[in-house]
Amino acid sequence: MASFCDQDYLQALLDVEVALAAAAAASGLIPESSVGDIRAAATADRYEIAALEGDARSDGNIVIPLVRKLTEAVAARNPESARYVHHGATSQDIIDTAQVLRIRVESAALQKSLTAIMNACAALAREHAVTPMPGRTWLQQASPTTFGLKAAGWLDMIGRCRDRIGDVAERSRVLQLGGASGTLASLGNAGSAVAEAMAKELGLTVPAMPWHTHRDRLADVASAFGISSGALGKIGRDLTLLAQSEIGEAVESKGSGGSSSMPHKQNPVHAVTALAGAIRTPGLVATVLAAMPQEHERAAGGWQAEWPAMTELIRTTRESADAVATAIGNLRIDRSAMRRNLEVRGGVAMAEALSSALMPHVSRSDAMKHVERLCRTVDREGGSLRDTAARDPEITRWLPAAEIDRVLAPEHFLGSAKVFVERVLTLWSV
Amino acid sequence: MASFCDQDYLQALLDVEVALAAAAAASGLIPESSVGDIRAAATADRYEIAALEGDARSDGNIVIPLVRKLTEAVAARNPESARYVHHGATSQDIIDTAQVLRIRVESAALQKSLTAIMNACAALAREHAVTPMPGRTWLQQASPTTFGLKAAGWLDMIGRCRDRIGDVAERSRVLQLGGASGTLASLGNAGSAVAEAMAKELGLTVPAMPWHTHRDRLADVASAFGISSGALGKIGRDLTLLAQSEIGEAVESKGSGGSSSMPHKQNPVHAVTALAGAIRTPGLVATVLAAMPQEHERAAGGWQAEWPAMTELIRTTRESADAVATAIGNLRIDRSAMRRNLEVRGGVAMAEALSSALMPHVSRSDAMKHVERLCRTVDREGGSLRDTAARDPEITRWLPAAEIDRVLAPEHFLGSAKVFVERVLTLWSV
Amino acid sequence: MASFCDQDYLQALLDVEVALAAAAAASGLIPESSVGDIRAAATADRYEIAALEGDARSDGNIVIPLVRKLTEAVAARNPESARYVHHGATSQDIIDTAQVLRIRVESAALQKSLTAIMNACAALAREHAVTPMPGRTWLQQASPTTFGLKAAGWLDMIGRCRDRIGDVAERSRVLQLGGASGTLASLGNAGSAVAEAMAKELGLTVPAMPWHTHRDRLADVASAFGISSGALGKIGRDLTLLAQSEIGEAVESKGSGGSSSMPHKQNPVHAVTALAGAIRTPGLVATVLAAMPQEHERAAGGWQAEWPAMTELIRTTRESADAVATAIGNLRIDRSAMRRNLEVRGGVAMAEALSSALMPHVSRSDAMKHVERLCRTVDREGGSLRDTAARDPEITRWLPAAEIDRVLAPEHFLGSAKVFVERVLTLWSV
Amino acid sequence: MASFCDQDYLQALLDVEVALAAAAAASGLIPESSVGDIRAAATADRYEIAALEGDARSDGNIVIPLVRKLTEAVAARNPESARYVHHGATSQDIIDTAQVLRIRVESAALQKSLTAIMNACAALAREHAVTPMPGRTWLQQASPTTFGLKAAGWLDMIGRCRDRIGDVAERSRVLQLGGASGTLASLGNAGSAVAEAMAKELGLTVPAMPWHTHRDRLADVASAFGISSGALGKIGRDLTLLAQSEIGEAVESKGSGGSSSMPHKQNPVHAVTALAGAIRTPGLVATVLAAMPQEHERAAGGWQAEWPAMTELIRTTRESADAVATAIGNLRIDRSAMRRNLEVRGGVAMAEALSSALMPHVSRSDAMKHVERLCRTVDREGGSLRDTAARDPEITRWLPAAEIDRVLAPEHFLGSAKVFVERVLTLWSV
Repeated sequence: MASFCDQDYLQALLDVEVALAAAAAASGLIPESSVGDIRAAATADRYEIAALEGDARSDGNIVIPLVRKLTEAVAARNPESARYVHHGATSQDIIDTAQVLRIRVESAALQKSLTAIMNACAALAREHAVTPMPGRTWLQQASPTTFGLKAAGWLDMIGRCRDRIGDVAERSRVLQLGGASGTLASLGNAGSAVAEAMAKELGLTVPAMPWHTHRDRLADVASAFGISSGALGKIGRDLTLLAQSEIGEAVESKGSGGSSSMPHKQNPVHAVTALAGAIRTPGLVATVLAAMPQEHERAAGGWQAEWPAMTELIRTTRESADAVATAIGNLRIDRSAMRRNLEVRGGVAMAEALSSALMPHVSRSDAMKHVERLCRTVDREGGSLRDTAARDPEITRWLPAAEIDRVLAPEHFLGSAKVFVERVLTLWSV
Repeated sequence: MASFCDQDYLQALLDVEVALAAAAAASGLIPESSVGDIRAAATADRYEIAALEGDARSDGNIVIPLVRKLTEAVAARNPESARYVHHGATSQDIIDTAQVLRIRVESAALQKSLTAIMNACAALAREHAVTPMPGRTWLQQASPTTFGLKAAGWLDMIGRCRDRIGDVAERSRVLQLGGASGTLASLGNAGSAVAEAMAKELGLTVPAMPWHTHRDRLADVASAFGISSGALGKIGRDLTLLAQSEIGEAVESKGSGGSSSMPHKQNPVHAVTALAGAIRTPGLVATVLAAMPQEHERAAGGWQAEWPAMTELIRTTRESADAVATAIGNLRIDRSAMRRNLEVRGGVAMAEALSSALMPHVSRSDAMKHVERLCRTVDREGGSLRDTAARDPEITRWLPAAEIDRVLAPEHFLGSAKVFVERVLTLWSV
Repeated sequence: MASFCDQDYLQALLDVEVALAAAAAASGLIPESSVGDIRAAATADRYEIAALEGDARSDGNIVIPLVRKLTEAVAARNPESARYVHHGATSQDIIDTAQVLRIRVESAALQKSLTAIMNACAALAREHAVTPMPGRTWLQQASPTTFGLKAAGWLDMIGRCRDRIGDVAERSRVLQLGGASGTLASLGNAGSAVAEAMAKELGLTVPAMPWHTHRDRLADVASAFGISSGALGKIGRDLTLLAQSEIGEAVESKGSGGSSSMPHKQNPVHAVTALAGAIRTPGLVATVLAAMPQEHERAAGGWQAEWPAMTELIRTTRESADAVATAIGNLRIDRSAMRRNLEVRGGVAMAEALSSALMPHVSRSDAMKHVERLCRTVDREGGSLRDTAARDPEITRWLPAAEIDRVLAPEHFLGSAKVFVERVLTLWSV
Repeated sequence: MASFCDQDYLQALLDVEVALAAAAAASGLIPESSVGDIRAAATADRYEIAALEGDARSDGNIVIPLVRKLTEAVAARNPESARYVHHGATSQDIIDTAQVLRIRVESAALQKSLTAIMNACAALAREHAVTPMPGRTWLQQASPTTFGLKAAGWLDMIGRCRDRIGDVAERSRVLQLGGASGTLASLGNAGSAVAEAMAKELGLTVPAMPWHTHRDRLADVASAFGISSGALGKIGRDLTLLAQSEIGEAVESKGSGGSSSMPHKQNPVHAVTALAGAIRTPGLVATVLAAMPQEHERAAGGWQAEWPAMTELIRTTRESADAVATAIGNLRIDRSAMRRNLEVRGGVAMAEALSSALMPHVSRSDAMKHVERLCRTVDREGGSLRDTAARDPEITRWLPAAEIDRVLAPEHFLGSAKVFVERVLTLWSV
């Protein structure tokens, strides 16, 4: 199977073996003295990941060769203690519990990156709460929005993602200890006691029963990471679009990539990292979900498929978060570009403002149709919507020139944008 | 785009238009009298889904032609009221809010099916708390488990799925109302008031800001459905394996499918429905996740891809749940088959019990190796592990014949199975 | 299971039953006279799809209730003939062969749409072979390209897709006839003869053996459709980006969607349809692939998962192709917008042309660094790359003003663009 | 981004740079003498993958830092030659062409493994052409098949996969060389000549035009690998099912995995590797497809997402093939288990044989119903279908006891199984 283990994961596997030994000793199943021997041997730097993964191909999982090597290392210190390595557990107990530990660490790290993004978004939202810019729907200019509202949307979404990661990390913080068939038969009557002690040692909770082939908690974690990656991809998408040479409203200003042939190039490398991540993670989440229908007490394929998928999913999502944190934290905002873009195509994107201003006077559909006609005129003949409207008797009949100017000023057609920004800032207290 | 709308969804779209009108009237934006006209025209049976979906292909979404038809129907009652249809909203406001309403209904229905499964599993867990059966790992017999523990595992997992559906349904219960660019500019200063009134009318909450292109809540719903489907697939997998002709430990006894050519056939149709569902849903969840990086204020592709994916995902998951409820609720359990299967291959699956019994006397690895040798003898020469052990001086040196019998009785090597079953039953109070 | 059957598919199922009867009669297994009775009853309009799909839920597949209804209909004409309906076949023989027939029809229809796209692209490629426009990499302006080359790229890609569809349609054109377990035991010694006759009747070939659980040919079809959908999505992506209000180089001019609130809006509906399709189809292809590990002689889940996935995949891909054909066939090209966009940011996108022109005189890295410096000056101080270069002694030392003008004219830095366009047009003979 | 580069890939990147230099020299663009300097520096062992991948995070791709390092290494030999490194190319030219080279090597290696599987399957098919075993549909026993036919089904499917890999490897064997925007402007008029020379050097063909954002060929390769993986998963599925303790008809006899706690365990590790692979690869293929809608002349996300997905897909598929080759090449077949399993549940799986034998005498539906009744009797009362039939006057009226025996002998109800096996062996000439 593809490499999914790194130094940290390996250490987590060893930590679980140590906790198992400590718990067994606390229950009197193995001598207290052996725990120290096992602990002393349980440092990741003693073992070679590549070799373990190679052996795992025929052994079936990485813990089988690891226990072999660990047992040898313990035996080298004290042959008696070697008898008590991996006592009562099955390989999956170790791998799943290490996975849980890893999720705890990785979730915290991801939350930290997401918090950095939130802080950066909050600063942008606050600073640009009333900075008008083109709204864009279907990639066409729509009624205006503000850059602050755009940043608030990112903040609100990332805030929910951070909470979601916290939730699933909390819910997945459960020990796996079931032994060969999930009954803990190998521990006789001591099963519960060992599980309690082991969970305490590791800072985990004890589930109602083992969950070797009940993978919904893990799928939940996978989904939460995948959703975060998708949300980061949304920011990445917006950033790449805003940074287009013809638009230039917000540009990554740090560490953006150059070209091997074009001297002028500054590529939005970090935004693209998040976009690439968001293309990859759906397939990884799907893999974890597809792996769920696992056979009886231990899977024939599903569990094994999870390992690399989870590793990739976590790694990719974290890289996306780090990339977006860098991009958002170093964004060069160009208000004048926003202003200039509000005027492209004669400023027809303000059409809704104009038709809204007419509606007290004519029916909704008449207002819509008349303004649409004006917009087509602008498209065909050039000029601005403002001037075209000011020349149109059907418009000036209801709206004097000064009123047309007011109506077509983007800053006067921002509706609740500021309210929304404030609510988002309050909600996340940032 | 593929059909994703049915009668219920169409009605939800119309309900949202009515709520919008009522809210606008409450804020004094439109005449109260128009609300009744709109409400009267807003019944799904007046509109043809196929025709609407056809028009949606060039209009871009189904609400544009629906508003057209609704406006005509309102105008037929009262031309003045027709002016106020869809006031201040954008199509996505209607579609997203209707989606939220649909999720509420579908989530409740799914929870009901999951509850039925939980009750059936609880009955099985209680009844078979100490019924021994072969444990199976990697599709090979392992140390024994109980059928009660297997049923408890299903119950515990489905219970978490039901809770998860409840959580996401709750978290997604938010109004969408943002107007063209998400600023609610079209409602002037009345944006917040209309949103409050509309949410109240529909039993929804008001989010901090519109979420047209922030789809994490929806992705969360999709994930929860997908995880449920995967969990149902796990039950389906176990059921198809247990029902195999050579195993026959638990068989669907109702509505199982026949063959068009083989008179003896009774296919596990409901279990297979859940398995087929679990193959389909990962791709649908992945689609919703892949659709997340949506452009600016309205997507160019992502939002549109969600519609059929969500419809299929919800439908498939609900069918899986109904199928599993039928299968589990009508399961014929064969204890004697379980007992018989515990004895295949000379009962070598009890090997761990024997090696465990030796461990107080010899080292773990010696015990393992010795019992492995006995098992290979049984494989090669036939006979039972019991008889082979009873003839082996290395075994009888530590374990007298009666003790061997006791050790090798599956009911004596069930560890904490009963405790786990009880904990699960208590946890879910079923 | 979700609806996957329409009138055409239903007729295909019935056509296969007729062909089976005809083949059995030709081999003397059933009376020739019965074939006419079966054929007369085998018209899709006699059967209700919704009812058949409902029964399929408990029967396991749609052919079981269909054969029941067909037998009744035949019996109503001639009870004796009813004995010979579905003779020797298993349900999967009918469903798979009907699928093959459907793939043949759908592949041909898709190829037709793709041909329409190719013709439209060829016309654009020819007309705009030397029309310069900004090249864009990482969504940043790069050295120029031509609109003809962009259209040629679409043409070349769609041409390969069309060929690929032809290939897989050809390779998948195989009969399925294996009976209950794939041995055709029900046909005694006549198996091969019936299969030959049936295949001839349907215009199919006879495979070396039945393929009930060997789904690679079908997965190949799914992949080819999915790849077409992805390719159409690439065109959709380019079109939405080109149509942006700020860019406006190529715009859908027919049937583009309006807005329910913004009078000026013209949304690129067809391009977005293709983009939405390309988000959905990867999950559907993945479903067909995930369904491949099918159990023994008939699947418990995998085959059943294929049905709706294939239906959706085919439908979505065809809709994308039709949408792109409409979009490309009605594209309004704006050369002046292309020209104008070549000048944004002072025309720095021509930087590579300038550095290339310096390279005969200074080292590659000096040229790159110097021109980069000029570009930064333009960014900071405004003006054009041309004027900035013309003022720079390090540049004018090697390049006189007229030469700078020549070097910075986009039409002089198009390399092999025209050659590529011609090669593509020749290759596809369009 | 996640690690996707290994030593072989790195060397391929360097080989492409050398070929580019050689081609440029052949066209007189750079001095012939520099080619040797570049070639001398272009050995993978000089460069550190981890460092390059680290730099790629901010540079945007791995070739940018690699060219930097390569240029330094060349400069250390001859500063003049360093000017000509990467002449006229863009990073994607190097990465894509290296990908093509890698696909060539990996495809050949995969075909070799698939050939090994085919040879092993052919041997099994030949040896067991008439070895009866239970057919199994929906995981229920169906009419019998032969182990030879099962092996022939694997062979036929894998043969098609091998051909498919050959096809896509051939079709994807195209150079990528387009320069910054795909026009090869940087090579002036020499574009075609350099491309021809470079392709010749590398054993590739020259496409009609560059394909930087036209990824259908690569998606085709991904699909072919994914389909192979799915096909290998089908074999893995069958093997895990056949190896079940209660079935035991075919068991991996080499390198099968043990358990860390159960002395008797022999897990079907290689079959499970293929099953796990088949769960992972659909998501990876979906990723490559999802990455297809790439922006303009260079992707902002899609291309970058391909790198790790392709690496994982190729690696996983190759591991599956190797695992299945090991499993199939070391399979212990147990004919007596097959025979024994044909008799479970009183041998009712022969029901179709009995009903078929009745059909010349009674109507199809009467025959089906009567035999179904007999099967239910056997289910309820035990005994065998043979004895129950022999006691039934409705049966013995048409079939004497000896005829019942003949009819119910599995070897007499194998239809065209032998013919199919022979055809498959002939088709693949193995």
